Amino acid sequence: MAAAKKRILFVVMDGLGDRGCKALNGLTPLQYTRTPNLDWFTENGSSGMIDIVAPGVCPGSDTAHLSLLGYDPYEVYRGRGPFEAAGIGLIGKKGDVAFRCNFSTVNERSEVTDRRAGRIKAPETTELVKALNGTFIDGIEILVKEGTEHRAALILRGKGLNANVTDADPHDLKKVLTSKALTKEAELTASVVNKFVKLSYDKMKDHPVNAERRKKGLPEANILLPRGAGSFPDMIPFPEKNNMSAACVAGVGMIKGICGVCGLDVIDLPKECNGGMDTDMIKKAEIALKMLKKYDFVLMNIKAPDISGHDGKAEEKCSVISRLDEMAGYLKNNMSDDTVIVFTADHCTPIEVGDHTGDPVPVTIYSGTIVKDDAKEFSESGCAAGRIGRIRGCDLLPICMDLANRSEKFGA
Amino acid sequence: MAAAKKRILFVVMDGLGDRGCKALNGLTPLQYTRTPNLDWFTENGSSGMIDIVAPGVCPGSDTAHLSLLGYDPYEVYRGRGPFEAAGIGLIGKKGDVAFRCNFSTVNERSEVTDRRAGRIKAPETTELVKALNGTFIDGIEILVKEGTEHRAALILRGKGLNANVTDADPHDLKKVLTSKALTKEAELTASVVNKFVKLSYDKMKDHPVNAERRKKGLPEANILLPRGAGSFPDMIPFPEKNNMSAACVAGVGMIKGICGVCGLDVIDLPKECNGGMDTDMIKKAEIALKMLKKYDFVLMNIKAPDISGHDGKAEEKCSVISRLDEMAGYLKNNMSDDTVIVFTADHCTPIEVGDHTGDPVPVTIYSGTIVKDDAKEFSESGCAAGRIGRIRGCDLLPICMDLANRSEKFGA
Repeated sequence: MAAAKKRILFVVMDGLGDRGCKALNGLTPLQYTRTPNLDWFTENGSSGMIDIVAPGVCPGSDTAHLSLLGYDPYEVYRGRGPFEAAGIGLIGKKGDVAFRCNFSTVNERSEVTDRRAGRIKAPETTELVKALNGTFIDGIEILVKEGTEHRAALILRGKGLNANVTDADPHDLKKVLTSKALTKEAELTASVVNKFVKLSYDKMKDHPVNAERRKKGLPEANILLPRGAGSFPDMIPFPEKNNMSAACVAGVGMIKGICGVCGLDVIDLPKECNGGMDTDMIKKAEIALKMLKKYDFVLMNIKAPDISGHDGKAEEKCSVISRLDEMAGYLKNNMSDDTVIVFTADHCTPIEVGDHTGDPVPVTIYSGTIVKDDAKEFSESGCAAGRIGRIRGCDLLPICMDLANRSEKFGA
Repeated sequence: MAAAKKRILFVVMDGLGDRGCKALNGLTPLQYTRTPNLDWFTENGSSGMIDIVAPGVCPGSDTAHLSLLGYDPYEVYRGRGPFEAAGIGLIGKKGDVAFRCNFSTVNERSEVTDRRAGRIKAPETTELVKALNGTFIDGIEILVKEGTEHRAALILRGKGLNANVTDADPHDLKKVLTSKALTKEAELTASVVNKFVKLSYDKMKDHPVNAERRKKGLPEANILLPRGAGSFPDMIPFPEKNNMSAACVAGVGMIKGICGVCGLDVIDLPKECNGGMDTDMIKKAEIALKMLKKYDFVLMNIKAPDISGHDGKAEEKCSVISRLDEMAGYLKNNMSDDTVIVFTADHCTPIEVGDHTGDPVPVTIYSGTIVKDDAKEFSESGCAAGRIGRIRGCDLLPICMDLANRSEKFGA
């Protein structure tokens, strides 16, 4: 194409979409809250609704972000483990099988007495994984890394692995489970998982960290319990697939993990830009715009609306939305002309549900040459009046690439 | 179905869709220009937006028209060659491999010195192809036909051909390339292409046409350079597939070619109905309505809006749109009651891009029994208010066939 290529910024407001709330007179937090800056983008842009995965399908953060990055999660998603592992910096490769783990406490009858080992955290967990990371079981390499609090990730690396195995974690105060192969191909993996669980107990039960905790009367972290097996997807990295350099500006480990697995550069953020309620949104927007000078594509994730949705706090979600609107104002005043900017959510987290739902999410796309449409208000109802109509999550990226003059002609 | 079958007219306004133009206060040419007749159809019809191929996918004229004719271009499109060839009346069949060619000038070192041989044209090119058309190379039949100016089409016909070969045309003032097979199955084809290039030089270098050009100091057309190999799609012809007789009313070679390959009757048009800016749109509409008495389905293509889009001329595109609107008025006043008429575009050619883009295009369908919806204005924003929503290009024909009481019940 002759026209100059533009850069693309995805502003993903995590869990932003909602349903009618009793506490807000039947309105959604987005309908209820004044959002002059977000509305400015809607008034001057093209808007619509997105089924992030498919109509009525409730997305996880991982499948949602895969869709937004243009991948069909039905093709590439192979379980949560790989993205959790990547989120804490343990990026696997094709053929690896990854698990989420908890440091837990078991008694001598292998019964779990504390699933989170008294919410043990680093640096104790950092010390404990050293006893296991890099060991081999039946020729399979064991990679373990501590996550936030009592969490860890496990990667098995070697030939003949398969993720079709059940959890060792009983998800309750019960006896540790024996991981079972669900298919013949997964027998080696199940056996390695069970040996790993035993090894973790052998290596950790008398570890100095636990000796210390015993002294203090704290629950010992004497076992690691894997769950959520997943194989690493065999996907074309985002920059190669789309011929764009790409970065992720996010505070939450799992989002960073997904973006990392997809081949985006994960930008280190200052402490005040985190995945929590108290994140500095303006600072994050400032960093996103700075990265947009260096990268063709930036995905920015703000976790706060999702947190208030999970907590079921309507007023808190409204106040988060006010802050998001200020951030949109900052972006409006500081973005460069050659940007295609997208405001959307990865899924809904309605106040009255307290968890993700499959409701479609609003989207507004703005650029200097965008066609203005009839939508006036950035909300679950307002955006539906726009010309984008109802699209799938994995269609958003191709649409934006075309608007950024980055699509290739199919035919002549 | 009990109700009488209606006839279907597709009015394809080539490259009509656009983006916001600075020169038009951020409006699109369609939003900017008064179009009372097109708007009448929108007010009284059903409207929506079409992703001609898929969301964000930038269509060529060929893939776009395949979609509008109800074919999935991902299934049937096998390169540009076949449609170019068909466009100049060289309609191939399954198994054939087709190429676009230039008459070029080479020196004795096989270096291209003029890719267009001084823009040689008929009747000189007509004379030159006679020396090559109908010959055989290694049992493969050679069909060559001159196109407009320095262009020609080449079809190879015989057993064991395959279109996976590279161009002989260096696309620049460089040495003629040796066509290479990209797969083992294409080795015969590459070899025939290379022998054809040599044969064209041997037959043309001392041809009387070139002797004459030499005398006049004009570049000789002493070689034919094939490019853009494509195999003829294995598709069910349109009339058979849809149980409708069908005709194409178009001025542009490539559109005629696509329709011809799909099995539509390509109607010969008077000189004033061409594929240029000065085409007589009313006359073309008159012919289309006349053909609609004879055929069940007519596709009419008007190229002018695409030309002004490629040229980046906003005011010119607005003036073309005014003429298109007059044509719509003519159709409104003269069409018969038993017609399902469709106004749409094959793709967008935005002024500020100067080439095709993948933005969705507006569509309005009108017939005597159509459901009126809220859309009032035929434009990229106005049609989005309609009840058709956002559909794919290849869904348009089935929708119209059903409105024409031509669909078959699936089930009982």
